[in-house]
Amino acid sequence: MPENVARRRLLSGIVASGSALVMSGLFRQAEAADPLPIPKWTKSLGEPVAARPYGLPSPFEKAVIRRESAAEFSPPGYVPPLSTSSWALTPLQDLHGSITPNGLFFERHHGGLPTIDPAQHRLVIHGLVKREILFSMEDLIRFPAVSKFHFLECSGNSDTSLEGNHGQTAQDVHGLVSCAQWTGVMLSTLLREAGIDTDKARYILAEGADGAAMLRTIPISRAMDDCMIVYAQNGERLRPEQGYPIRLLVPGCEGNINVKWLRRLEVSDIPAFSREETSKYTDLTGPDGIAHKSSLFMEAKSLITFPSGGHELPEAGHYEIRGIAWSGRGKISGVDVSVDGGKNWQPANLAEPVLAKCLTSFTLPWRWDKSPATLISRARDETGYVQPYLEQLFKTRGKFFVYHNNAMQPWRIDSNGKVTNGNKG
Amino acid sequence: MPENVARRRLLSGIVASGSALVMSGLFRQAEAADPLPIPKWTKSLGEPVAARPYGLPSPFEKAVIRRESAAEFSPPGYVPPLSTSSWALTPLQDLHGSITPNGLFFERHHGGLPTIDPAQHRLVIHGLVKREILFSMEDLIRFPAVSKFHFLECSGNSDTSLEGNHGQTAQDVHGLVSCAQWTGVMLSTLLREAGIDTDKARYILAEGADGAAMLRTIPISRAMDDCMIVYAQNGERLRPEQGYPIRLLVPGCEGNINVKWLRRLEVSDIPAFSREETSKYTDLTGPDGIAHKSSLFMEAKSLITFPSGGHELPEAGHYEIRGIAWSGRGKISGVDVSVDGGKNWQPANLAEPVLAKCLTSFTLPWRWDKSPATLISRARDETGYVQPYLEQLFKTRGKFFVYHNNAMQPWRIDSNGKVTNGNKG
Repeated sequence: MPENVARRRLLSGIVASGSALVMSGLFRQAEAADPLPIPKWTKSLGEPVAARPYGLPSPFEKAVIRRESAAEFSPPGYVPPLSTSSWALTPLQDLHGSITPNGLFFERHHGGLPTIDPAQHRLVIHGLVKREILFSMEDLIRFPAVSKFHFLECSGNSDTSLEGNHGQTAQDVHGLVSCAQWTGVMLSTLLREAGIDTDKARYILAEGADGAAMLRTIPISRAMDDCMIVYAQNGERLRPEQGYPIRLLVPGCEGNINVKWLRRLEVSDIPAFSREETSKYTDLTGPDGIAHKSSLFMEAKSLITFPSGGHELPEAGHYEIRGIAWSGRGKISGVDVSVDGGKNWQPANLAEPVLAKCLTSFTLPWRWDKSPATLISRARDETGYVQPYLEQLFKTRGKFFVYHNNAMQPWRIDSNGKVTNGNKG
Repeated sequence: MPENVARRRLLSGIVASGSALVMSGLFRQAEAADPLPIPKWTKSLGEPVAARPYGLPSPFEKAVIRRESAAEFSPPGYVPPLSTSSWALTPLQDLHGSITPNGLFFERHHGGLPTIDPAQHRLVIHGLVKREILFSMEDLIRFPAVSKFHFLECSGNSDTSLEGNHGQTAQDVHGLVSCAQWTGVMLSTLLREAGIDTDKARYILAEGADGAAMLRTIPISRAMDDCMIVYAQNGERLRPEQGYPIRLLVPGCEGNINVKWLRRLEVSDIPAFSREETSKYTDLTGPDGIAHKSSLFMEAKSLITFPSGGHELPEAGHYEIRGIAWSGRGKISGVDVSVDGGKNWQPANLAEPVLAKCLTSFTLPWRWDKSPATLISRARDETGYVQPYLEQLFKTRGKFFVYHNNAMQPWRIDSNGKVTNGNKG
């Protein structure tokens, strides 16, 4: 801090004044007579324009990156994933608002990340259709386009909380959720073009062009609803790790069904029961771990991102609790926040616009008096569903499920301001 | 294209079916008996996860970059800008939806791009206030945060159209407009914290920490309205070229007043009449070029981005006309599109959500029969304002103005499908 500016911190507290917060005393007060020193970057010219024709973040933000899932948070005996079948988590504790920049959007691949030449890539629609069609990228882009904001969440997000190995930060535990504006063509438009056999068609099999040839089935009702074939994300063409040149987007449904590098859509009268639907992305529910089919939707969930694990509050005083909430079933209707571990709850402010199947930011002003505190947030969606405690999930689903953990996340703050995972211990 | 797939193109045209478009015959039809060949990227594993912890676009999209203003479109005798006081334009013709990814957001610097250490950066509020305050970045982030979608447009955007040197592409001519979700603190919150002298305070002077020490004044009424001090853009911290670690955001007003690398806000009873307000960003209006003060707001404007200059339509048939519209005065209320150079107009579809002072995407289906055509779009905003023809602007403002060109942009399509700037010739 500049030396000729006094560091006095006034001691008065927060004064609520109508809905406005006046936070007198939080800040250093400049001496009226002190000129602000001229920093070194004002004394010289900077870099030329378009020094980076495709821009990158400030070098001071180099720690804000995606990270591969940390093996140390996996249960004993767990086989660490191959890096070609792994996931990289979004740094939620360092993000702001509801959009995830493309460079930080979470990644999950099953057979490594292919680099596909869009001029060679094709999508075929076949099976129970009047005419099979082969689309080039140019063909797809000529169809009527739509742009929509939707979150995407891996079904395995937050699974370390189920296994008693909780991770430290929001990124460690919950970083497999991100949000973007997607542009593409409605799947229903393409299916109408192909002319599906409405008497027999019940399912659509989607196949990826990656080395895993990822296979998932969706019911025809979903396919004709809000599904999209997307080629752009936050304005630019999809990134390779998001399925360049095209992916399936099934808004509100688990990440892996949003098949990346999409090459084939087969209209069928039966579900495929592919390997991803039988050996992998099936929840084992009940006391005996019975396979539960078709748990596609991601239920309402929320997460406090500030303060969250790894943060440290420097002093007593005003803070704003901030977080994100989402529901695969529609719009978020409210978020409640507790600062005492769930005894008392207050409604948080939701940032406009609140959109269906999209991250919604929430905030709540809070004064910390240096007492230990436990912060929890609880989302509700427009269907009336309320985000559960982890214990409630175990009660209804049993102990064997791995996916779809949408339980509330407590963050514990000690008297030194250190924030840790409240699921611990 | 795979050899064992027939390339037959059927000849039937577009069939409108209710509101749905059926485009039978636009596409290659796959032979039922032909298996889709397995591409090479399905036969091997791809790159590991988090190969790029901060992601980048596909190498096949390497042409989609910001470009410095092309000197060849400048008038005779024009001095090409220094690259430290220049601008780089967004590739609008390659973008989709309403969000500009941070890596492609337009750039304008007056003294080069400084790389500022956020731990050293300070913002001071002083002048006609009860208490002068010096904020660190940590201080600013502790204030109540808001996230809003707003466009940003350089006052000099589209000025090549005024000078008879029109450029070829949407990027060349109009690439100084972009849009993002911004997160920060309301300026009014900070001014209330400092306690402005409401009897005397009329203006706020904003100063940047760059080598140009960019200076602009805004009226106190604007400052207390929807202005923000922003530190994040599309989820992550601001990029250096957008003012890292903080910039002023004055929604709807010309780019240069959104002072980047903001270090000082001085509350005053008089405007500063800074060099940027006198020698530079002043419109010379009327027949004699009288200086016109305070043309801050960017009026309603729209631009067809597809098809636009440099595009080539491969064949007759269905296309979707696509573009963006915006207004510094509020929400876009409608966009009309003409395909015959302004004789007849049709209302375009606006993409939801339509937000104030934000890019709004529009679309209109169109069948091209290989006749020459001239496409024009015309935006209206919620104040009732209608985007003018260039001739109307010259009539009301005279011939001397340089900034705030919001005239309609015609794109001419010849019988070969080549698209050129309709302002030419």
